[in-house]
Amino acid sequence: MPAQTYSYQQLFDFARSIFLKIGCSDEHAAIATKSLLSADLRGIDSHGIARLSGYVRLWDVKRVNATPDIKVIYETPSTAVVDGDSGLGLVVAPFAMKVAIEKAKNVGTGWVSVQNSNHFGIAGYHAMLALEHDMIGMAMTNASPLVAPTFSIDKMLGTNPIAVAVPAGNEHPFVADLATTTAANGKLEILQRKNQDAPLGWVQDAEGNPSTDPHILKKGGALLPLGSDVDHGSHKGYALGAIVDIFSGLLSGANYAPWVPPFPAYVPMPKKQPGKGIGHFLGAMRIDAFRPAAEFKSEMDNWIKGFRGCKTVPGEEKVLVPGDLEIESEAIRLKEGIPLLDPVISDLNELGKKLGVPFN
Amino acid sequence: MPAQTYSYQQLFDFARSIFLKIGCSDEHAAIATKSLLSADLRGIDSHGIARLSGYVRLWDVKRVNATPDIKVIYETPSTAVVDGDSGLGLVVAPFAMKVAIEKAKNVGTGWVSVQNSNHFGIAGYHAMLALEHDMIGMAMTNASPLVAPTFSIDKMLGTNPIAVAVPAGNEHPFVADLATTTAANGKLEILQRKNQDAPLGWVQDAEGNPSTDPHILKKGGALLPLGSDVDHGSHKGYALGAIVDIFSGLLSGANYAPWVPPFPAYVPMPKKQPGKGIGHFLGAMRIDAFRPAAEFKSEMDNWIKGFRGCKTVPGEEKVLVPGDLEIESEAIRLKEGIPLLDPVISDLNELGKKLGVPFN
Repeated sequence: MPAQTYSYQQLFDFARSIFLKIGCSDEHAAIATKSLLSADLRGIDSHGIARLSGYVRLWDVKRVNATPDIKVIYETPSTAVVDGDSGLGLVVAPFAMKVAIEKAKNVGTGWVSVQNSNHFGIAGYHAMLALEHDMIGMAMTNASPLVAPTFSIDKMLGTNPIAVAVPAGNEHPFVADLATTTAANGKLEILQRKNQDAPLGWVQDAEGNPSTDPHILKKGGALLPLGSDVDHGSHKGYALGAIVDIFSGLLSGANYAPWVPPFPAYVPMPKKQPGKGIGHFLGAMRIDAFRPAAEFKSEMDNWIKGFRGCKTVPGEEKVLVPGDLEIESEAIRLKEGIPLLDPVISDLNELGKKLGVPFN
Repeated sequence: MPAQTYSYQQLFDFARSIFLKIGCSDEHAAIATKSLLSADLRGIDSHGIARLSGYVRLWDVKRVNATPDIKVIYETPSTAVVDGDSGLGLVVAPFAMKVAIEKAKNVGTGWVSVQNSNHFGIAGYHAMLALEHDMIGMAMTNASPLVAPTFSIDKMLGTNPIAVAVPAGNEHPFVADLATTTAANGKLEILQRKNQDAPLGWVQDAEGNPSTDPHILKKGGALLPLGSDVDHGSHKGYALGAIVDIFSGLLSGANYAPWVPPFPAYVPMPKKQPGKGIGHFLGAMRIDAFRPAAEFKSEMDNWIKGFRGCKTVPGEEKVLVPGDLEIESEAIRLKEGIPLLDPVISDLNELGKKLGVPFN
């Protein structure tokens, strides 16, 4: 499938204009664009500008409020609950992360659970906001129910990602950002485009049998938790996804489990709504609330070099540290541009026409 | 393999006497015994009284200090670093958890990183100490290097478990306690006793090739991170194990990565020691630092009932909530006793003879 390349600035200007067109303030449009495009830079194409029209469709059906009054509705010295007022998660999560960082400055750590939000792009971006403050950042979110717990046919959890960003000294920071499923939905989409089967262990069919059909989600199937089956620890992936749901949805008063609002605007909202919108959980820990930051970062360098120096299994060139591939992608794409697939380009052209912002 | 059954009280009295014999105070002996036997009650036989002689052997070689001066060496309102003074992790971790709980009472959450400790039994026990305070408890620890990161032959991480305990209302609490590997070492030991092969995806051999040999760790092989291979997300299990190592080892000033002291006393200590002892990380979050506890616990009941009510895949009777099997085991074993395998009984007899505390 042919791809055309766009500069970061081109895509930034376009996305920002779209967010302004739907009514976002200058400040929110810039924040949302930066959050969104961090995915394209980091090589997580499924979560970047390819989703812009999806966010706009949520605004079309009045599930996204472009002018939200985002605020702290409850707090203690180290915790807060933020009400996102149905805003874009791309804007709500950075607000919540800022609250967490301020609390960490004051009492060592800050933990913010968010209700009444929408999808927030990649978790890693929000976790990384802590790095420049010499803090460890954490971000998680619940999401549309696509995942069947171990032994279940019913889809009860989202891909519920966990991101943890840890500052280092001379080395790049450690940035883990992982869906708590064996494979994220984006990987299935790649196979659909290539007309290839999925490996066993990614999905099951509507009756709960193993499947390799990359289209199975549309036929009532489900994604499987990290671990794939119980012999390989799928109950652990299920537990991790559940923890994300509890921290994001239940601590905040957002929706949870199968009642999390779906991302596609055409999918009807669940009839039951035990909470408000979708939920996130953000955290920041000041390194020097534990030990001097310089000392810690020098140990992190030693840790990272240890892993990079590992002997590799046959056929592999190097052992990676979480975040390596994304940093490499960012360097390349800032220089050489961001490749977009034809269907994404058509979609952006359509969107541009609709809102009077020419894409090309 | 035949098993004989012992009452909780019998095993408690024996283990407590052993801890007293090696010089623990009354208080520490009781705490250590309760921590240790929580594994036997919860059905995690690999981590309970079967390891008692292992802890004593660490004391024999002066790696465990039976009379530690455990103390907070650094703190902020929401964080602390605890020096375990080479004490039993079974005693050090509950001390650290108490510090975390006190901090949570004051500022909403408490986070304690621990250096200079030893193995702490099951992570779930320590996390659960938060429950009676209407707090979410978390516990993790680094451990002997047995796990090869994705693409690595070298063993760089321990099975590095993560436990999260969440209070509910009328339902049992949610308690997840998971090694960040596909299978824990204890599961390999079961296969060794039964002379059965391991499923593909649990271990690799010394050259990094897939293996089904349950004895492969003794031949230079390694456990695999949760996910098994890169197609099934082993880089995620590796990242999770790494996060545990960073929070437990690097934030505290303990050893980390391949330099974590091994549990078997006969395995020599790594030559390089970047920190002190092994590290843990404990956390407590007060529910009502986010929302009223009664409200949250009623939503947790709803959450739990939702998962229990799921339709099951062919051949399975019910969908479990993390902690269900352990609670069931505890109820049965408190009533009917704790079964011990013959080799464990012989080992305890030996230990009893050596220290002048008859086992039977």
